[in-house]
Amino acid sequence: MSGTPRPRYVSVIGPGDADDETYGLAHEVGRLVAVRGGVVVCGGLAGVMEAAARGATEAGGVAVGILPDEDRRRVNPFLTHSVATGIGQARNLAVVCSADAVIAVGGGYGTLSEIGLALKVGRPVVALRGWDLGEHVAVAASPEEAVERALGRPGA
Amino acid sequence: MSGTPRPRYVSVIGPGDADDETYGLAHEVGRLVAVRGGVVVCGGLAGVMEAAARGATEAGGVAVGILPDEDRRRVNPFLTHSVATGIGQARNLAVVCSADAVIAVGGGYGTLSEIGLALKVGRPVVALRGWDLGEHVAVAASPEEAVERALGRPGA
Amino acid sequence: MSGTPRPRYVSVIGPGDADDETYGLAHEVGRLVAVRGGVVVCGGLAGVMEAAARGATEAGGVAVGILPDEDRRRVNPFLTHSVATGIGQARNLAVVCSADAVIAVGGGYGTLSEIGLALKVGRPVVALRGWDLGEHVAVAASPEEAVERALGRPGA
Amino acid sequence: MSGTPRPRYVSVIGPGDADDETYGLAHEVGRLVAVRGGVVVCGGLAGVMEAAARGATEAGGVAVGILPDEDRRRVNPFLTHSVATGIGQARNLAVVCSADAVIAVGGGYGTLSEIGLALKVGRPVVALRGWDLGEHVAVAASPEEAVERALGRPGA
Repeated sequence: MSGTPRPRYVSVIGPGDADDETYGLAHEVGRLVAVRGGVVVCGGLAGVMEAAARGATEAGGVAVGILPDEDRRRVNPFLTHSVATGIGQARNLAVVCSADAVIAVGGGYGTLSEIGLALKVGRPVVALRGWDLGEHVAVAASPEEAVERALGRPGA
Repeated sequence: MSGTPRPRYVSVIGPGDADDETYGLAHEVGRLVAVRGGVVVCGGLAGVMEAAARGATEAGGVAVGILPDEDRRRVNPFLTHSVATGIGQARNLAVVCSADAVIAVGGGYGTLSEIGLALKVGRPVVALRGWDLGEHVAVAASPEEAVERALGRPGA
Repeated sequence: MSGTPRPRYVSVIGPGDADDETYGLAHEVGRLVAVRGGVVVCGGLAGVMEAAARGATEAGGVAVGILPDEDRRRVNPFLTHSVATGIGQARNLAVVCSADAVIAVGGGYGTLSEIGLALKVGRPVVALRGWDLGEHVAVAASPEEAVERALGRPGA
Repeated sequence: MSGTPRPRYVSVIGPGDADDETYGLAHEVGRLVAVRGGVVVCGGLAGVMEAAARGATEAGGVAVGILPDEDRRRVNPFLTHSVATGIGQARNLAVVCSADAVIAVGGGYGTLSEIGLALKVGRPVVALRGWDLGEHVAVAASPEEAVERALGRPGA
């Protein structure tokens, strides 16, 4: 087979303990990805992961959570589907491999590892707040710009 | 949170190069899981994995594929969603951890490893053909019996 | 590079809660691998893993433990070196990939998964007690026979 | 058990295609870790991984390589022991979990992911060239300073 399967998947990564502003940004990113017909992928837990899943599913879209634990039950309640990997922090690799593009909202060490893994396996990364990694990561000033950089201009 | 999230997930495991009879059994297992409202989880590739996903999605249900590769594009065409783990054969752990129950259709060494991992993490395993592991695995004589053992009697 | 690196690595797999007889068999397997100049690889925890490491290092040999946890400190005290993988039960894949041959002493579900993974990645498996998997696994009646099947006849 | 097992393990991380200067720095880091009685852990391949292993083993020390592949044979020739994980880039988690401290020599995306994972699981990171991550990573001006920051002052 060839070609990226439709719909496009966007992983939204960020810390599990987001403040209100970061939560709001991630929620809006999730919503916009869903409105554009994309699937939101996330780490399945709280904070940015929850906000993005919530934004997507409240807008009628789909959110897939990829969990570190062996158990699918420890999960935020806004996921359409959840996958329990049992591999701990190594699930970060699955979170980014499953994406066509990655949007990082806010910082955190797990997020940093996901940015590194995404770049290593060739996924484009857009940052909305958080780690400043120079030329390696596109920086967006708003959720709209982040999603546009991840999915391209609407209709383009 | 507590309680298994609805819908229930059933992983259908088996070799990637199934003969016609095994393919047909896995297809019927996937169909019956979907008819019962369950989600089919599989390894995302060919053979039994494809048959189960095909049976589920042709019946209007959902199939989630969990892939060994870094790329979501090498995948059978019958998946509703796919997750690329990048962890090779270790993705077998994610395939069984994501399930509430596991149905093995046919043999193969990867299948054997998944049965061992499923039992290790406490998931019930039903075998339809394939490995004879004595008391450790329930044996079903038909797809109907396999799905009934995995999901319980309808209406029960 | 080509050729298997010397020394040869033998993974000794088995349950973490071995009875005295199983512990004794695994200890003797570890000792004999070391006497033959091989390195014992194991899962790093108690039971068969500890016994094999103990047998090897008490005989002046080397034992490498590959742990499921993120922490190298939860480990049996008979390892020459330990590796903490942080990937839970998926470390079973590393235990068998690191081996030139695998000897299973006793049963257990993790052991079953390791046998499946070993066969999947093409490592020969010798069983000393434990799972009866027919033609797929060579059966040995004693530690001597198990090590001879794993490493070949001395001097051959 | 409690307390970090002796000897102490230092993971030396960095790109697989190091230039001469980076190779020289990593070689010296490996040598100094070995002289101090530490074990060098690395990713087992070329570039910085090879240089650190070479520095350690040429000085009479020990180097352990943790490989992404299923096969222990694709490896640099300066390792005392090698572990094949079969989990691809997820082996980066094992490289940092196995360490008491991490020294990054040079940049690269895999290195960035390892820094993130190390910080996530609570391992101190010292950078010698490469990624500038502000307060999160200690910066060393020389191999001597890097090893001193990782292992403490000699005799202290």
